[in-house]
Amino acid sequence: METIKTYVKRRIEKFQTALKEADIPGALLAKPEDVFYLSNFNPVLNSHPVYLLIQPEEEPCLLVHCLRYNHAREESVTDNIRCYAKWGDAPSMAPTADEAIEKLLIPRKFRRFAFEMDYVSVNFHRGICKRLGIEESIDVTPLLNPLKIIKDPWEIDCIRGAAALVDRGVERTIEALDQGLSEAEACTEGQYSMRKLWSSKYSDREVSGFGTSEGGMIDSLFAWSLTNEHIAYGTDCPRKIVPESGDISLSMAWASLGGYHAENERSLQVGILIETRENAYEAMLAARKSIFDRLKPGVIFEDLYAAAIEEFKSRGFEDIIPGRVGHGVGLSAHEFPSVAPGNKLALEKNMIFTVEPGIMDLKWGGARHSDTVLITDDGYESLTQLPNGKISIKAG
Amino acid sequence: METIKTYVKRRIEKFQTALKEADIPGALLAKPEDVFYLSNFNPVLNSHPVYLLIQPEEEPCLLVHCLRYNHAREESVTDNIRCYAKWGDAPSMAPTADEAIEKLLIPRKFRRFAFEMDYVSVNFHRGICKRLGIEESIDVTPLLNPLKIIKDPWEIDCIRGAAALVDRGVERTIEALDQGLSEAEACTEGQYSMRKLWSSKYSDREVSGFGTSEGGMIDSLFAWSLTNEHIAYGTDCPRKIVPESGDISLSMAWASLGGYHAENERSLQVGILIETRENAYEAMLAARKSIFDRLKPGVIFEDLYAAAIEEFKSRGFEDIIPGRVGHGVGLSAHEFPSVAPGNKLALEKNMIFTVEPGIMDLKWGGARHSDTVLITDDGYESLTQLPNGKISIKAG
Repeated sequence: METIKTYVKRRIEKFQTALKEADIPGALLAKPEDVFYLSNFNPVLNSHPVYLLIQPEEEPCLLVHCLRYNHAREESVTDNIRCYAKWGDAPSMAPTADEAIEKLLIPRKFRRFAFEMDYVSVNFHRGICKRLGIEESIDVTPLLNPLKIIKDPWEIDCIRGAAALVDRGVERTIEALDQGLSEAEACTEGQYSMRKLWSSKYSDREVSGFGTSEGGMIDSLFAWSLTNEHIAYGTDCPRKIVPESGDISLSMAWASLGGYHAENERSLQVGILIETRENAYEAMLAARKSIFDRLKPGVIFEDLYAAAIEEFKSRGFEDIIPGRVGHGVGLSAHEFPSVAPGNKLALEKNMIFTVEPGIMDLKWGGARHSDTVLITDDGYESLTQLPNGKISIKAG
Repeated sequence: METIKTYVKRRIEKFQTALKEADIPGALLAKPEDVFYLSNFNPVLNSHPVYLLIQPEEEPCLLVHCLRYNHAREESVTDNIRCYAKWGDAPSMAPTADEAIEKLLIPRKFRRFAFEMDYVSVNFHRGICKRLGIEESIDVTPLLNPLKIIKDPWEIDCIRGAAALVDRGVERTIEALDQGLSEAEACTEGQYSMRKLWSSKYSDREVSGFGTSEGGMIDSLFAWSLTNEHIAYGTDCPRKIVPESGDISLSMAWASLGGYHAENERSLQVGILIETRENAYEAMLAARKSIFDRLKPGVIFEDLYAAAIEEFKSRGFEDIIPGRVGHGVGLSAHEFPSVAPGNKLALEKNMIFTVEPGIMDLKWGGARHSDTVLITDDGYESLTQLPNGKISIKAG
């Protein structure tokens, strides 16, 4: 495998080509995932934002707060790094990010310019356009998504590692629940086991996530559990609940390694289940089979959804069908595209997404397994590899 | 102490009064921290956004994706919950969030309307204003910040718990480094110790963070370490580095409990330090003392900064002074306001922020302790309580 910097440079070239073809003279990226994708720099904290200016024919320019200068110099693919604000002895070009952007862009006299229009704030965008006389703002996301959806060997390698971490996390959480621990305690053990595996085997790659405007995510190795009616919450913090005989419980993990995510989710039958839960579990396994039987290049995403839903409908769950049965993963836990109605895209080699047809209901709970899969030349490879049939634990 | 719902209702009333005084007939909040502040609902994942409509004289309306309906019904202060999209059997008012917002707002014929203009995206804002004929968009953040800066008893209680968690995390991380573990391993132990304390003592309150548009934060208990030149990175993922004699190392932790953050950071001298590191450590302790000596209601934030900087300057560190020496904490790890030049606000009782004057340099490292402090009637209380003088560990 080549170095990360080689892969990132190739991504930049592809993006520059896309800009040129769309006749866009420049784009300013601000979303941490996008900036990382095309620079390899993750500041972890994003309360002092990082910007990346990309033009079809020039070296990209990374603009960081002075506080991030040294870190950016180590990680960034581009050596063209400029700073704003004041901290320590880093060389600053302007007191604020807005003024620095102005200085960078004014000489280039952009009239047409691209932003992440679903991400940048009204205040930020309005200020730049007004000061620089930008007349036409183009949304850059439709140019980036098609690039991000196909993973390169480096990205696949990271997700493979992340998959090993979530497998470990879910396995350990289930074991702890089986030993009678509460959700909160079991997920604590699940996260610890992921961290231990990371620090012994994978600590040359970061597990930090991407920050918000007021914080950051130092560590992205999460395990959580939901039992019975809480399954219908979709996601929640684990609680001081010990699953008992008759319960249905869901153990889940996310991890990102080198910026790239995997997810694993497993439904557990605790002791003996009532008929509705039993039927739901069986329906979920059947819906999964209908998807896995079809997974290969050329198949249309929405047809995977339709096949899974057919199984739920034919088994009496037509009133509670899910809105999607999987989603892309990558720099985000939930990335473009969804395995959902309306998605006419065809599967291609090196796409990675989750397969997780599930049903849930506030009255009795729900059932869902999720795996992270890679599309191959003629089929798929499941990157998460825990047993995927019916999983039972004894009453707590 | 009263219930969380009572406190949230009081916050809503204050915000409604502020809207009325500013002659703003309605505001739509979308930032997860703000929605939680005025509804008590944190979906954890925000890839299907939650919106909160607030008007001066009406019950707030929470708008959620169908997938979040059951969860919102348990946690939200308001019972006025509407849904968009399609998932399971939740009652949906429209296929998309935009269409649902349109249905909610059209009958109210707003011309002036408030948004978080530093948060909402250009596409989102443009779509709503165009479809609804909104002529004047007002930024709601200047109305919310003054409310959020003064903490109520519930918020203080959460931060007190979070402070106990970060104290444990940093203490355990330091102990593990002292035993010769690497940064990555030591922080793994630090996080585990926080999780154990949480699951045994605090698991009635959530440790989840707030999600981004493509993900979420199940757990917010983070410990991390930076050694020598990496201190000058500000923040980074811990590495496979074992601190050795002569090194200076920084152990840090963040935690949020019930949505509210605390932070603790401690500089460690490993064995014997070179003179620059020794002097930097002493200067940092002196800068801290100059702030703590002044901490009480009425003092101006920027005067705290000036006092700390004076210590750094008088000790030969005038070329690497920091841009701020603390920041607000609350629903975010880095909240309004900064302890920085230009901040003319006066300290008031029940403000909570960090005190963390620090210096750093790529050549030799840096020194910084951070504590989370509560302003009281006539002084302050440090919510984080680890030893705050010079801390030594033996060489790894």
